Amino acid sequence: MQEKLLAAVDLGGTKILTIIADLNGKILVRKLLPTPPQTDAAGLLHVLESAITQTLAAINKSIIHLAAVGLCVPGFFDIKERVVLKLPNIPLVKNFPLESALAQRLGVPVLVENDANAAAVGEARQGAAKGHRDLIYITVSTGIGAGLILNGELYRGSRGFAGEFGHLEVKSEGPLCGCGKRGCLEAVASGTAIARRANEALRKNGETKLSQWAVQNNGKVTAEHVFLAAKAKDPTAIAIIEEAVFYLGISISNLINLLNPSLVVLGGGVTNAGDVFFAPLQKIVAKNTVKYANQDVKIVPAALGSEAGAIGMLFLVKNQLK
Amino acid sequence: MQEKLLAAVDLGGTKILTIIADLNGKILVRKLLPTPPQTDAAGLLHVLESAITQTLAAINKSIIHLAAVGLCVPGFFDIKERVVLKLPNIPLVKNFPLESALAQRLGVPVLVENDANAAAVGEARQGAAKGHRDLIYITVSTGIGAGLILNGELYRGSRGFAGEFGHLEVKSEGPLCGCGKRGCLEAVASGTAIARRANEALRKNGETKLSQWAVQNNGKVTAEHVFLAAKAKDPTAIAIIEEAVFYLGISISNLINLLNPSLVVLGGGVTNAGDVFFAPLQKIVAKNTVKYANQDVKIVPAALGSEAGAIGMLFLVKNQLK
Repeated sequence: MQEKLLAAVDLGGTKILTIIADLNGKILVRKLLPTPPQTDAAGLLHVLESAITQTLAAINKSIIHLAAVGLCVPGFFDIKERVVLKLPNIPLVKNFPLESALAQRLGVPVLVENDANAAAVGEARQGAAKGHRDLIYITVSTGIGAGLILNGELYRGSRGFAGEFGHLEVKSEGPLCGCGKRGCLEAVASGTAIARRANEALRKNGETKLSQWAVQNNGKVTAEHVFLAAKAKDPTAIAIIEEAVFYLGISISNLINLLNPSLVVLGGGVTNAGDVFFAPLQKIVAKNTVKYANQDVKIVPAALGSEAGAIGMLFLVKNQLK
Repeated sequence: MQEKLLAAVDLGGTKILTIIADLNGKILVRKLLPTPPQTDAAGLLHVLESAITQTLAAINKSIIHLAAVGLCVPGFFDIKERVVLKLPNIPLVKNFPLESALAQRLGVPVLVENDANAAAVGEARQGAAKGHRDLIYITVSTGIGAGLILNGELYRGSRGFAGEFGHLEVKSEGPLCGCGKRGCLEAVASGTAIARRANEALRKNGETKLSQWAVQNNGKVTAEHVFLAAKAKDPTAIAIIEEAVFYLGISISNLINLLNPSLVVLGGGVTNAGDVFFAPLQKIVAKNTVKYANQDVKIVPAALGSEAGAIGMLFLVKNQLK
């Protein structure tokens, strides 16, 4: 018997996750492949097709019929022109009609979405935010982004650029951000920013608990090391995390004051730090939000981990097929 | 013949505007009355009934049938419990079911809404934002508030507290805000904040162009005087406005980065200052927004002035009657 299947692909800056599911959303197989560095548009099309083909090949069925593909991308997708404008981590792909090009190549409908938007849908439909109508999904990893579910629907904004939470200005004349502006939240509170601050501190004084990890790691530490050092009560690491959490807390407070969500879901690598991260964050948010909005909201960790985006795409593409 | 009419009431901290319109939204009469200072809930009910009765009495028709009332209020209205929680300028009215109490008193359906939300609807349906699906209405006067129209609908948030734009934290350890927090946008960029800064400057040095207005005004100046002095190139006034516009610009930039609206509408007394206000604001926003979101948005003055809230209520209450 021929079975209709959906493919959901989460294109990341370093990895591509492909999930194959049936039309009921039941996941049959998942596969993680590397994103080739410095790929251009033609290379990307080839890699995406190959990822889908390889993942489909892992299914033990005689006849497979791919019904549609959902693809989320780490960057700016113009929902009016249906064009990928810019992917900061895949800089050679820009102003490219990826959706129609991939659809033509595969011969099936393709739906493209921003990755934080897709992850917000995933968490809302099947993760930490089930049952909430107004919620914010925030991812804090190498970068910082957000997806907004408002009035029960994904809110994309006028051209699809809503949720650029990492580029809220939080520190006047602060560090330079990858986007070219100064003092963006992403430049002071992302995993990248935490690692940068730690490596600066290592060069300056060198006598922190971070040094032991630096020795094993080409002289450099990552945000994960900083969280480990903070758990071991290293004052340098604690100060670095406090600053990052402070700015993240102020930004989440502003978001709560502006949108009165009933839930804020935090995902991304940095949030794996657990209580070192969540406890001070909750305090800052309690202090900086309007009382009524604060009484109404919970801040919780994401539930779907690195699959949130692909799972969200399954829902979005299934919805599109109806 | 009996004519069915709608009443829309905008309850302000100092004035009550009542508009009577027919079911097509045609405005028949408007009346402005003072809000009695220090009124309690019973007093407020009486004043609102009286405002509606007096305004209806100005209509030259033999038989009038009031079909419904829309009322917008300057404060926190809980849309789940349908209770007015707090009106900062009418502090004796709190935790009061104003909607049902007024409906019972008048014997007609009453719909209550937050005033900035109502003004956003007014500007979207009949004012500066006609034809836009994703827009932010911001009012900058004694306080600062916002109303959000997203995906073509008024966005109220989970309990009705969305749009608390005045309480975004913009200046760490900044001046104390009326809400009890420090460094809120309202505490550095509202008309009240501009006047406070100017009066502080007068006490300190006294040799600014502001002094002439202070002499005629019990030794104090208002935000309007500061704008006049700035137009006359007074450096003290210019510096005060620059600071207010800077923080407002950063906050609007953050809002654009977060929500990707196609329009930002600025209303409220302060925006009457015109180019002294809008020109530097546009510059700050251009510098602090993500390129794609910025290319997509215009910032324009409101069109309906002090009637935006009441006009919005006409649309909302008419919609409710359907």
